[in-house]
Amino acid sequence: MTQATFSLPAQGPFSTLVLGGARSGKSRYGEQLVECAEGEHIYIATAQAWDGEMRDRISHHQKRRGDNWSLIEEPLALADVLRSQITSNQIVLVDCLTLWLSNLMGAEKNIDANVDDLIDALGACKGRVVFISNEVGQGIVPDNALARLFRDEAGRMHQRLAGVCDAAVMIVAGLPLVLKQP
Amino acid sequence: MTQATFSLPAQGPFSTLVLGGARSGKSRYGEQLVECAEGEHIYIATAQAWDGEMRDRISHHQKRRGDNWSLIEEPLALADVLRSQITSNQIVLVDCLTLWLSNLMGAEKNIDANVDDLIDALGACKGRVVFISNEVGQGIVPDNALARLFRDEAGRMHQRLAGVCDAAVMIVAGLPLVLKQP
Amino acid sequence: MTQATFSLPAQGPFSTLVLGGARSGKSRYGEQLVECAEGEHIYIATAQAWDGEMRDRISHHQKRRGDNWSLIEEPLALADVLRSQITSNQIVLVDCLTLWLSNLMGAEKNIDANVDDLIDALGACKGRVVFISNEVGQGIVPDNALARLFRDEAGRMHQRLAGVCDAAVMIVAGLPLVLKQP
Repeated sequence: MTQATFSLPAQGPFSTLVLGGARSGKSRYGEQLVECAEGEHIYIATAQAWDGEMRDRISHHQKRRGDNWSLIEEPLALADVLRSQITSNQIVLVDCLTLWLSNLMGAEKNIDANVDDLIDALGACKGRVVFISNEVGQGIVPDNALARLFRDEAGRMHQRLAGVCDAAVMIVAGLPLVLKQP
Repeated sequence: MTQATFSLPAQGPFSTLVLGGARSGKSRYGEQLVECAEGEHIYIATAQAWDGEMRDRISHHQKRRGDNWSLIEEPLALADVLRSQITSNQIVLVDCLTLWLSNLMGAEKNIDANVDDLIDALGACKGRVVFISNEVGQGIVPDNALARLFRDEAGRMHQRLAGVCDAAVMIVAGLPLVLKQP
Repeated sequence: MTQATFSLPAQGPFSTLVLGGARSGKSRYGEQLVECAEGEHIYIATAQAWDGEMRDRISHHQKRRGDNWSLIEEPLALADVLRSQITSNQIVLVDCLTLWLSNLMGAEKNIDANVDDLIDALGACKGRVVFISNEVGQGIVPDNALARLFRDEAGRMHQRLAGVCDAAVMIVAGLPLVLKQP
């Protein structure tokens, strides 16, 4: 590989943004980043298992991770978890930000204010954090206005997080393109 | 960053293609390329403010750029502007080619002939030119034939321009992946 | 270009995955990889010319390739061709895997079993193989369940093939981003 890849440091604070398309291997890549690092592994699931298709996806992801992970289910208050619950020995995988964004929009929350708060919480967080998020902006403009709004908000969120994270990668076919080397 | 990034040279001719998805930060990246270079800054807007959503986007972009820019609004005759109006001291940001393509299709112009003409004009242009364009071809095949035609034409235009430009970058989450180093 | 590019080795076995969006230049890139290598050039077309739009695309591709190619049309049994018909002097361009996947889904075949079989056949193949495939997972989530299934299957297939291939590249605007250097 021409791209330098990287490992998480031995302790936090440290943050990484892992972007990728659907079934690009972004979650698996993030899991491997976490599992290769010493410390306590925490999975923060933003998904709410509200239908069968989503339930299948969650179950598929859970089977892949081993038993060395603890689980926090948090569809909305990510910032609170990062700010108050995470220690420097812990490594957190947030899977995923696009579902968090979708949950915020469903709950009619202010997106900018919530991204501000997440970035503030990340600045205060003592642990290592790996954010997983879906790249959704490289197709044709969607017909419906809500989908257009969603991809705009996702794009803005990715720009802002990539700006503050220590590292950023784009995953294609399971392989990393490094956007920001720590 | 592992990717070498680059600056515009002190004078033209020089051309750069900046691709990116929706809200990827491609316009901001292009603006920074231009603003870091000495010379007269010209913004060529291909947008026509025909509805409220588009008007909001344009206003959002205008607020971000400072007052050191002059503005040319040109939905169709890009080639004429590049060929005849731009001097070697000027730096032009064309934002964006996908809207230009959309305008051409709306006006039932021949796309290949217009891209030929743009490439010919670029060869004759004395200034530094930065083209912004949307990557739209990495989603699922669109249902409707016009959208399929649009993404095919956009893809062909990007290939042709990347072939003749001195530099090309793909922006993801505000960060550049260099496709062609000058 | 900052990205190291590569050539095919003088003889097989060797395998390359070339991904790209619509009209990204992925087929042309794959053809050039093959044409720059010594040996017998074979084009495996997975397309079935079932409508006018597809027929136009096939004809467009055929015109671009010269007469130094032999053609195998195989919509489904790719694995059989790779396993039994290809010698170490031959270089095969498979264009493309996403159409093969679409054909499998249309014929209600088991996708995982067929990808397993393709990977097994690739392990047994003596020739140099270049797979072309469409990146379809970087847009907004499609409305219809079949399109969602298709992009999920495509993503999984790409991950699995990128894992076993000797090299992988992502083509954007005709230019390569190297995902896996041989």
